[in-house]
Amino acid sequence: MIQNDLFLRAHRGEAIERYPVWLMRQAGRILPEYRAVRSKLSGFKELVETPEFATEVTIQPVDLLNVDAAIIFSDILVVPEAMGLPYQMIEQKGPWFENTIRSQQEFDRLDQQIDVQDRLWYVFEALKQTKTALNGRVPLIGFAGAPWTILCYMVEGKGSKTFSESRKFLYTQPALAHLLLQRITDVTIAYLKGQVAAGADALQLFDSWAGILGDAQYNEFGIKYISQICEAFPETPLTVFSKGAIGSLPALAQLPCTTLGLDWNMDVNVARNLVQENMTLQGNLDPCVLYGSPQIIEAETKKMLKSFKSQRHIVNLGHGVYPDIDPEMVKVFIHTVQNYAI
Amino acid sequence: MIQNDLFLRAHRGEAIERYPVWLMRQAGRILPEYRAVRSKLSGFKELVETPEFATEVTIQPVDLLNVDAAIIFSDILVVPEAMGLPYQMIEQKGPWFENTIRSQQEFDRLDQQIDVQDRLWYVFEALKQTKTALNGRVPLIGFAGAPWTILCYMVEGKGSKTFSESRKFLYTQPALAHLLLQRITDVTIAYLKGQVAAGADALQLFDSWAGILGDAQYNEFGIKYISQICEAFPETPLTVFSKGAIGSLPALAQLPCTTLGLDWNMDVNVARNLVQENMTLQGNLDPCVLYGSPQIIEAETKKMLKSFKSQRHIVNLGHGVYPDIDPEMVKVFIHTVQNYAI
Repeated sequence: MIQNDLFLRAHRGEAIERYPVWLMRQAGRILPEYRAVRSKLSGFKELVETPEFATEVTIQPVDLLNVDAAIIFSDILVVPEAMGLPYQMIEQKGPWFENTIRSQQEFDRLDQQIDVQDRLWYVFEALKQTKTALNGRVPLIGFAGAPWTILCYMVEGKGSKTFSESRKFLYTQPALAHLLLQRITDVTIAYLKGQVAAGADALQLFDSWAGILGDAQYNEFGIKYISQICEAFPETPLTVFSKGAIGSLPALAQLPCTTLGLDWNMDVNVARNLVQENMTLQGNLDPCVLYGSPQIIEAETKKMLKSFKSQRHIVNLGHGVYPDIDPEMVKVFIHTVQNYAI
Repeated sequence: MIQNDLFLRAHRGEAIERYPVWLMRQAGRILPEYRAVRSKLSGFKELVETPEFATEVTIQPVDLLNVDAAIIFSDILVVPEAMGLPYQMIEQKGPWFENTIRSQQEFDRLDQQIDVQDRLWYVFEALKQTKTALNGRVPLIGFAGAPWTILCYMVEGKGSKTFSESRKFLYTQPALAHLLLQRITDVTIAYLKGQVAAGADALQLFDSWAGILGDAQYNEFGIKYISQICEAFPETPLTVFSKGAIGSLPALAQLPCTTLGLDWNMDVNVARNLVQENMTLQGNLDPCVLYGSPQIIEAETKKMLKSFKSQRHIVNLGHGVYPDIDPEMVKVFIHTVQNYAI
C-alpha cells in the first residue's frame, strides 16, 4: 500500500535500507508555501478546522522537503476544546482559554460523554483527505498531547514559563488532578482511535511539559496515563515524546509503545542502553544546528548518525523546527540523512 | 565571628546540629516589606544600584523569615552592564538590552580592561553595609551568573523560551563564543573576588539556562568556564547551581567547588551517589509545594529531609521562590527544617 514505508519499518524494528527522517513542525511557518495559505485565512484555528487547508499544508513538506512521513496539521488543544473548554490562538502570544479548571465545580462544568467524531470531525476529515492526496507515497502520522500537558493548559489557561498553577494543582488537589487526567486520557484514546480509523498509520504523543515535573510526580501524573494510551494501541506504531524528562527515561523505556522520542538534551546511547532493541528511538538533532552553514549541518548530522549503535532509529530534530529556519537548510539535513549508508 | 554558622559548616562538610535553610529569591516580591521599599523607587535598577536599599531588602528575610543565610540583593546582569552592555529591566517583561553581541565587531565594542571596583561599586558597598547590619547573625552570600547564562543574555538581548539565538551562536561562531565566555569569566572572577573582599562569606553561581544545552555542549561552553571560576576560589564555600542540567550531573560532581545546587527535578540520591561525601548538596524542594496547606508543606519537606542519606545538605527550594507565595507558608517550610532532628 505505502510505497515508502521506511518510517513504519523503523518503528517495528524491521530491516531498513537507510534511516527515515521527518521534522516536528515540518508543516508550518518555515515554508513560504505554508505562510501563503495561512495569510489567506482569518487565523490559525481556521487552518486547523478546515480540512482542505489542513490537508494542503500537511502535504507541503512531503512535496517540498522530501520527508519520509507526513504529520497531520492540527493542534493538541483541540482536545480540551472538545471537552468543553474552548481556546483562542492569539497572534504573537499563543493559546488562551477564557475558562480554566481549578476546582471541582469547574471540572463538573466540562461536557460529559462527548462524541469525539462529532466534535473533532475536521481532524478526521483532514486525515482522510490527506490520505487520499498522499496516495500511498509516505505514511501519515496522527497525534495528540499527552494528558499531563493538556492538563497544564486546562489549569493554567495559557502558556507559562513555569506552569506553577498546574504544579500547584497537583499538590493541592491531587484527587481532582487524577479525575481530570483520566477524563483527558479517555477522550484522547477515543480521539486517537478515530485518527487511526481515518487513516493515520502511526501516532505520536507530545508531552511538551514533561520536564517541569520531578520523576516521582511525572510517574504518578504523567506516565501512568501515557501508559493507558499505549495499551489501547497494541497494533499501531506509537511514539512517546516526553520533552525534558531526562530523569524519567528509565520509566519511559518500560512503556508498551514502539518508539521513544528524544529531545536534543537526551543522550542517544543512554536511551539505547535502557531500551536495548525493544524500542525505536526518534530524534534528536539540536534544532539550532539548522542555523549553521551546510557544512556544519552535514557534519553535526553525520556525527549524530555515527553515534547510532542500532538500526532502530527514526531521525528527527530534538524539538520542533524553529520558524525562522531556512527551508534550504532543512533540505541539507534531510539529504544528509537520506544519503547516509547504514 | 558569625553566631549562626550552620550554613558555612554544611558547605565544608563539618558537623551540624540541624540542616541550614535559606531560599533563592528570599529577598524579593514575596515580602510586603520588600514591595514597600520597591514602591518608593523608580524601578528595579534603582534598588540594585542603591546600597542602602539593597542592604535593607537583603536583611528583611533574616529578620522576618529567620533564614540561616542572607544573599545580597542584586542581579546577574550587572556583569554584562559592567562589560559595556547596559540593560533595562522592563516591568512585567524582564530584562532588555539595546545592543547585543552577535559578531566580532560587536564583541570588539565591549569595554576592555574594565575596573570592576569602579563599575560595580554599589554591589560591594551593599555587601559592606549588609555585613555591618547583619552584625554576624548569619553568613552573607555573594553571587554571579555563570558565563553561559550571561552569554545567553548578551547574545539574545532579552529573555527567551528557547534562547535559540544564543544556541545558534555556538554552532555558527564557536571561536567567538569562547572569546566572549572567557571575557565574562575573567570579569566574573574579579567581581566575585571583590564580593569576598567586601564581606561575602560564600558564593553562588547561577546557571539558569544550563538545561537548554546537551551534555557535550554544556561541557564545552558551560562547565569549562565554571571550573575556572571554582579554581579561583579554593578557600570560599561556593555553590554551582546549573538549573536543568540533569544529564551533566556526573560532570558537575567533578567540579572543584564545595557545593552543588539541585533543582526540583534532580534526584538527591542520584546526586549523592555521584558526589559521595566530597560535596555538599543544596536544595531542592519543588517551589510549588509552598502553594499547599501547612500540612502539605510539612509533609513534603519532611519527605525530602528523610531522603537525605548524609549530613552534607543545605536546604533550599529547587528554584527561586515564586513571587505569589504567602510568606506564612515560607515560614512553615523554614520551621519544619529548623525543627527536624538529624
